[in-house]
Amino acid sequence: MVGLKPLVFSLSRIENLMHQVSFDPRRMEGEIITNTSLVDLKMLDPTLRIFRDVIESGLAVSPYLKVETLGTKAKIMSACSITISGVLLKAGVPIRPRGGGVIEVIDREPVRFTDMLMYWATTIDPIDVLISQELTSVVEMMETGSGRILGNLQEAPMIAAERIEERLDLLAEAGFSGVLDLGDPNMNVLGVSVERDHVGLSLVGGTNIVAAAMSHGIRIETESISSLTKIQEMTHIEDLV
Amino acid sequence: MVGLKPLVFSLSRIENLMHQVSFDPRRMEGEIITNTSLVDLKMLDPTLRIFRDVIESGLAVSPYLKVETLGTKAKIMSACSITISGVLLKAGVPIRPRGGGVIEVIDREPVRFTDMLMYWATTIDPIDVLISQELTSVVEMMETGSGRILGNLQEAPMIAAERIEERLDLLAEAGFSGVLDLGDPNMNVLGVSVERDHVGLSLVGGTNIVAAAMSHGIRIETESISSLTKIQEMTHIEDLV
Repeated sequence: MVGLKPLVFSLSRIENLMHQVSFDPRRMEGEIITNTSLVDLKMLDPTLRIFRDVIESGLAVSPYLKVETLGTKAKIMSACSITISGVLLKAGVPIRPRGGGVIEVIDREPVRFTDMLMYWATTIDPIDVLISQELTSVVEMMETGSGRILGNLQEAPMIAAERIEERLDLLAEAGFSGVLDLGDPNMNVLGVSVERDHVGLSLVGGTNIVAAAMSHGIRIETESISSLTKIQEMTHIEDLV
Repeated sequence: MVGLKPLVFSLSRIENLMHQVSFDPRRMEGEIITNTSLVDLKMLDPTLRIFRDVIESGLAVSPYLKVETLGTKAKIMSACSITISGVLLKAGVPIRPRGGGVIEVIDREPVRFTDMLMYWATTIDPIDVLISQELTSVVEMMETGSGRILGNLQEAPMIAAERIEERLDLLAEAGFSGVLDLGDPNMNVLGVSVERDHVGLSLVGGTNIVAAAMSHGIRIETESISSLTKIQEMTHIEDLV
């Protein structure tokens, strides 16, 4: 019998990375969790312009990117929303990422999850799954105010709600936003129930920028929640386009 | 507030269909659960020839298909392995489909799951996810004896093991096979643990025929676990090719 490599579920990978987040939003120092994308070098400029539009629409986690050249490819690191979970964890909040999904937005108002995959029950990242199923309409949402975007759901004990709000404010000042919904205790978040005496927190997926680029016909390969990047090595989108 | 349509997880859809299985393997009567595939009518013959090769290799659930014409497309209904779960349920076995995954086969021996999605935690069918992630190598497995195929894992109380074996024998006589592993009580099945005092049952995915067609470059659209079809309306692959 060969030694069996056990299955690694998405939540394990996420927790490994959350543990390593050292980002301090006040000092703008330390490492954040990033998604890695590859595009042809000659498509870098149009890709970055689309990314900027999505970031300005509030459908991304942060305006900071790191761009490297890799042969004929450009490698782009962009903020993943699990960074926010990592910062909350480091503030002592027992935050639990539950799942990634597709969120229906009507007239700029996030309404409900239309699809969801739970992190602890899939070995393939939910966002990677949802992107390849082509279920989103990020560009349409930006143009008309209605469409389907990528997002996730997290959960924390309601006693931590104040600390969560405090950290989300700090993160927002540092340019890290993307909160779609912070529910009241025991209340559904975008149609999904939370555990008793818990609050749900829904965040935009950092990969909405990728979904938008894809729907503009750009060939882009992405691995979600794949790496850690020092914020000091990242550049504001306005200085890149 | 709009009325929220709740999320429908894959397991609910599966249980709805399992409840409706009326297949009697002794009489070859009643309805089985089928996957629905669409191909261009002019590609029907090569598709069926690939299906036949996969079925003969033992990597499909049954040799029976139903083919219909739909404009310029051929619609092919093929047996889904959840049919077997339905038959076990109707025999009073509390069988629980746990998840769909990718199974590594080495020298014709199924060794372990390399990826898995749990049915109760995803709204998108695991097999549809895994097919679009292009993680399988069904054709390679058929040619070399080693490769990655689609399969699933089910679980039942160990007290039902005898009844399960009895029904699996009946099903095999009726041409419904595809058991990769029936574990001993409390033992892992292909590297995945089962609940205490339960046995695990791993079945080949009915969509391996589709994965093989795709890797031969045939454009085929499939919806897994999507319909019920009367076995009397289905034809043995040998009478179709």
